[in-house]
Amino acid sequence: MDAQLVLPDEVEVVNVGLPMFADAIRAQGRPVQQVDWRIPAAGDEQLVGALTRLYGTAAADVDAANAEVLRRLDEGVPSLVGVSRAADVVPGVPGRTLLHCGPAIEWGRVCDPLRRSMTAAVVAEGWAGDVEEAAKLLGAGDVALEPANSHDMVVPMASAIGPTAPVWVVQCRQGATRAFAPINQGPGEVPWFGRDTDKAIERLRFLRDVAGPALTQVVDSAEPLDVFSLAAQGVSMGDDLHMRTQASTNLLIRTWLPQLAELPEPGRVELARFLSGNHLFYLTLVMAAARSLTAWAGQVTGSSIVTTMSRNGTDFGIRLAGSDTWHIAAAPPVADALYNPGYGPEDAAPDIGDSAVLELTGLGGPAAGGSPAIAAFLGGTMADAAAATEGFRLICAGRSSRFTLPPLGFAGTPLGVDVRRVVELGITPKVTTGILHAGSGEGQVGAGVATAPMECFTAALLDLDGRTSG
Amino acid sequence: MDAQLVLPDEVEVVNVGLPMFADAIRAQGRPVQQVDWRIPAAGDEQLVGALTRLYGTAAADVDAANAEVLRRLDEGVPSLVGVSRAADVVPGVPGRTLLHCGPAIEWGRVCDPLRRSMTAAVVAEGWAGDVEEAAKLLGAGDVALEPANSHDMVVPMASAIGPTAPVWVVQCRQGATRAFAPINQGPGEVPWFGRDTDKAIERLRFLRDVAGPALTQVVDSAEPLDVFSLAAQGVSMGDDLHMRTQASTNLLIRTWLPQLAELPEPGRVELARFLSGNHLFYLTLVMAAARSLTAWAGQVTGSSIVTTMSRNGTDFGIRLAGSDTWHIAAAPPVADALYNPGYGPEDAAPDIGDSAVLELTGLGGPAAGGSPAIAAFLGGTMADAAAATEGFRLICAGRSSRFTLPPLGFAGTPLGVDVRRVVELGITPKVTTGILHAGSGEGQVGAGVATAPMECFTAALLDLDGRTSG
Repeated sequence: MDAQLVLPDEVEVVNVGLPMFADAIRAQGRPVQQVDWRIPAAGDEQLVGALTRLYGTAAADVDAANAEVLRRLDEGVPSLVGVSRAADVVPGVPGRTLLHCGPAIEWGRVCDPLRRSMTAAVVAEGWAGDVEEAAKLLGAGDVALEPANSHDMVVPMASAIGPTAPVWVVQCRQGATRAFAPINQGPGEVPWFGRDTDKAIERLRFLRDVAGPALTQVVDSAEPLDVFSLAAQGVSMGDDLHMRTQASTNLLIRTWLPQLAELPEPGRVELARFLSGNHLFYLTLVMAAARSLTAWAGQVTGSSIVTTMSRNGTDFGIRLAGSDTWHIAAAPPVADALYNPGYGPEDAAPDIGDSAVLELTGLGGPAAGGSPAIAAFLGGTMADAAAATEGFRLICAGRSSRFTLPPLGFAGTPLGVDVRRVVELGITPKVTTGILHAGSGEGQVGAGVATAPMECFTAALLDLDGRTSG
Repeated sequence: MDAQLVLPDEVEVVNVGLPMFADAIRAQGRPVQQVDWRIPAAGDEQLVGALTRLYGTAAADVDAANAEVLRRLDEGVPSLVGVSRAADVVPGVPGRTLLHCGPAIEWGRVCDPLRRSMTAAVVAEGWAGDVEEAAKLLGAGDVALEPANSHDMVVPMASAIGPTAPVWVVQCRQGATRAFAPINQGPGEVPWFGRDTDKAIERLRFLRDVAGPALTQVVDSAEPLDVFSLAAQGVSMGDDLHMRTQASTNLLIRTWLPQLAELPEPGRVELARFLSGNHLFYLTLVMAAARSLTAWAGQVTGSSIVTTMSRNGTDFGIRLAGSDTWHIAAAPPVADALYNPGYGPEDAAPDIGDSAVLELTGLGGPAAGGSPAIAAFLGGTMADAAAATEGFRLICAGRSSRFTLPPLGFAGTPLGVDVRRVVELGITPKVTTGILHAGSGEGQVGAGVATAPMECFTAALLDLDGRTSG
């Protein structure tokens, strides 16, 4: 049959690039498909040059390094080996030191919630009688401040950890790496939310004197715990492991129930009450596990994959695998936020905490597409959650083989944020996170999505280009 | 612009009815859409007559009754109010009586796994010294056998419950109904799997002497438990609440952790070990909750909705709301099965247990579409699981407002099996269930899908027609 020329009843347009053309067509009531193409690196000559080399002459080396980074992130098995006081296990923490979230920072630049957390820790350590005295000590430089990340430790939100705080000890045997994170402080009046009340300080003492020793006994008497294997079960039950760890926490409680029941009094019932009310209990454990993998993967040189991403409420910093250089920018606001009644953007401290290590290991944002709870937060539909996962797919070098998302056909979560893709596409990681009050010490006032600042990534790209073409 | 007549390049066919026409077109390589229409009730004149009345002159009354049944099934709030010995709370259980799964049955027709379970219960009750003596007692009619369902009790798989067995007591306050189910016996050598070994009998004694009293104390000291509210959380975490109750079990353990920690020794550690290893612990609790709702909904007269569906391994029986008449057919085989290595269909006992009460209240098969674990069992994809939910949607009168399935756009699970639809479409409920060995006493040898026999539903339809046109 001959084809006949027939004028179409419907005009459909595919527009590539600037959306204003598509908007104009849409305004005329015609269907249009917008392809969101952008000039790589927004046309910046220096960046385009670096990308040209890192995707060209240097690509084979970078890709090989990335493959090894991905392998370590995907295949490393983080195992919980103990609970100890920080000073007993974390290397290089002498005397009066606090380990804090984010990049290095001096007292004068520390944001209000982290200051309060630091003063609470100083009082709990017994270095000061009250928070006013603690603030003076800190102001005088009588307490050393060190980024937790520089000691293979990761701490959530506005955490500051003293030497007597109990920490998870997680080991990745393949890499012979160890990492640490504090026992999660739970909800309510707690220093990790930027609170410095007597109750908040009391929580630190409870962790040190009751929960820490009891959990040491539990971990020592239980079977070794494969932290990511349990987290993978949690992902299949709707955890993203960052904003929501309830399934994983419950799995852990069920697993440890016999050991918890064997604990002596006093301590057993108090710990049980604490665990029962702490839906984010697994958060710091999975953070330590993630950190043990980025510690191993971070030893690979010449890679374009990000293995540190952390914030202190003032600065946002990243590091690439194979480099100790921090690339720093201002901590972004937490946008797209839901606030507790009576609070708004004017009350919000900037993005804070080391928990974004999860987004580097296939959890958090990359796992959002499997989480009804995160979907409810991001807009209500599973498509909203899938979009968060898709955002990471665009900028990641691979996929997790252990974290799979049932609603997305059991696809593996995106793994390994590649700074080349980030800069090329102009898309930085989005991290779903809590919002702390910027100044009143009231703690958490909302939650939202923080978009990582592009400057760190462009700086990291140029640094890598310099190292690989040098 | 004038329309022009253009012969199509592609021929597409929609075929309604017999699939052989569609197959013929498909064989020619042309696209075809098959609409699976069938003659209602396979054209059976008596059934078509009954359907014509029940969808016609009687429809308004039936629909009104169904709306009330649905309201009760959807809005009733089953609350756990205690754990007691069966004889202390279950009405009408005098002396030497066993309450068993499924419709009423005499000893001579009881299948092997249920026989073994009965003998184990007789020994545990102290009525016989060993299982041989127990079998003699049972054979002589010295132990009364009663369907659990006739006492507002539901029991899973091949359960037979003696008067000293501990049971959950669940109350639906709106309906002033109470229902009961035994504490789940857990995995391994257990009577509910048709085992009668010393270890199996010991498990019954453990439940009576250790778990029961300890759980009584836990329930009495804990907040009242909204059993379906917790189950709804479990559904959003991948439980169907029939084959898989792990998320709900873990939620329950986390909720009760303080009360479990407060238990005295001996008992506390032993119970903790039992709970920690029992992924189906929530199964009987949610069954009792479902039964408290079918007891309330079952008081509505003139409804076409099924409020009893249960099997004893020999017979399969259903009852409609508003009627005490059992409609019985032979228990079907469990097909589409996965067997443990070394076992096959020749080893399989027929479908057994009261757990299909869950399929009548929006759980089990209706909730499969939200469960990655059930998907893995039904074929591997979430589409396979969604198909199980869709099967129930076709034959159900409504949807649950509390059990919603995230992968299906948070749709409510199908609720209220309508015997009119079942007979009209020729589709009976499919129940995913375990398979017990038919004769060896080895216990569970696989799992599969049992398709309810149509005869019960046609009999129930004709009975309803007789009652409503009478």
